[in-house]
Amino acid sequence: MTQKNPQRGQLIVLSGPSGVGKSTVIAELLSERPDIYFSISFTTRKPRVGEADGVNYYFVSKEAFEEMIARDEFLEYAQYVDNYYGTSLRLIEEKLSAGTDVLLDIEVQGAAKVREKCPDAVLIFIIPPSFEELSRRLHGRHTDDEEVIQGRLQKAREEWKEIPSYHYLVVNDKVSHAASEIMAILTAEGCRTKYRKEWMEGV
Amino acid sequence: MTQKNPQRGQLIVLSGPSGVGKSTVIAELLSERPDIYFSISFTTRKPRVGEADGVNYYFVSKEAFEEMIARDEFLEYAQYVDNYYGTSLRLIEEKLSAGTDVLLDIEVQGAAKVREKCPDAVLIFIIPPSFEELSRRLHGRHTDDEEVIQGRLQKAREEWKEIPSYHYLVVNDKVSHAASEIMAILTAEGCRTKYRKEWMEGV
Repeated sequence: MTQKNPQRGQLIVLSGPSGVGKSTVIAELLSERPDIYFSISFTTRKPRVGEADGVNYYFVSKEAFEEMIARDEFLEYAQYVDNYYGTSLRLIEEKLSAGTDVLLDIEVQGAAKVREKCPDAVLIFIIPPSFEELSRRLHGRHTDDEEVIQGRLQKAREEWKEIPSYHYLVVNDKVSHAASEIMAILTAEGCRTKYRKEWMEGV
Repeated sequence: MTQKNPQRGQLIVLSGPSGVGKSTVIAELLSERPDIYFSISFTTRKPRVGEADGVNYYFVSKEAFEEMIARDEFLEYAQYVDNYYGTSLRLIEEKLSAGTDVLLDIEVQGAAKVREKCPDAVLIFIIPPSFEELSRRLHGRHTDDEEVIQGRLQKAREEWKEIPSYHYLVVNDKVSHAASEIMAILTAEGCRTKYRKEWMEGV
């Protein structure tokens, strides 16, 4: 990057329906851009097999989470079924202040809260090439029964309606292509005049 | 590009002070993106040695240019010293409608007019790494005398003030880097939710 003074990092929000292949796109993106900090959420849900504290999530008790809410420590948090999920404001702010770009993988509710609190956040929504393809991918996983799949598809339909409130829409037709579009978005956002004010001085 | 229906082309405005190396950046950009139509301006100034009609400019008489003004045929036009320079609205519109991206190399006055008439135009300003570097580059050309150079530097100072009205600022520290930032901007602009409305349907 062309940088005169260390710039504040960019806050990037990535949302997309279950089954869109978001984790694969994120893995590809982070392998190309290892400087990006991928935010780890706090949750009250129990770790699944293979999940580790501080890697997949920070696993905390419901009481601890509710104390964090009371202390206004979350940039955003949401409740799904009986579990809380939230993003620590302090962790994010430390990274952004140090000039590190921060990537949040959050759902549409959380994204709306981030947009309110951080007007400079870049909101990207990832979709599959078609809704039929999403259904095919969810069925192809062979991990969920039909009822769960139908629930995910219904949720996807609702999330889809929120796309206009995102800045960018990336179609995951091919992982490398989706990741490269996201990288282009980050580069372009860094070129915005408002972030390069220091270059306008000294003439 | 991920395209469902043929999209309308993007109108890209590139401005920058004399001596910034804009032509070199444009040449690099067009070699990577030969699909972009680089707009050729109409002018009433006389061709210089090596310049050809329909390549560098469309060279027309003052009378012909003024008739085009009267018929409102310009997207923008401006007068410098005794010469007119202008962009044909019809030519641009044909390309954009056909889905071709169009690049305009115009000065700040013209850019302001394009911004008014085409709110979706993407405005990019290119600057050298520093004002001192611009002075060095202008002196290094050995084509202009000191008075002309001082005039160009004064003009650059005035143009510099208009940078905040551009969307993006690209620093030409290295031609390939500047060109790749512009390409990223074009990719990102194409990912804007507002241009991908057709993907939001059919769920």
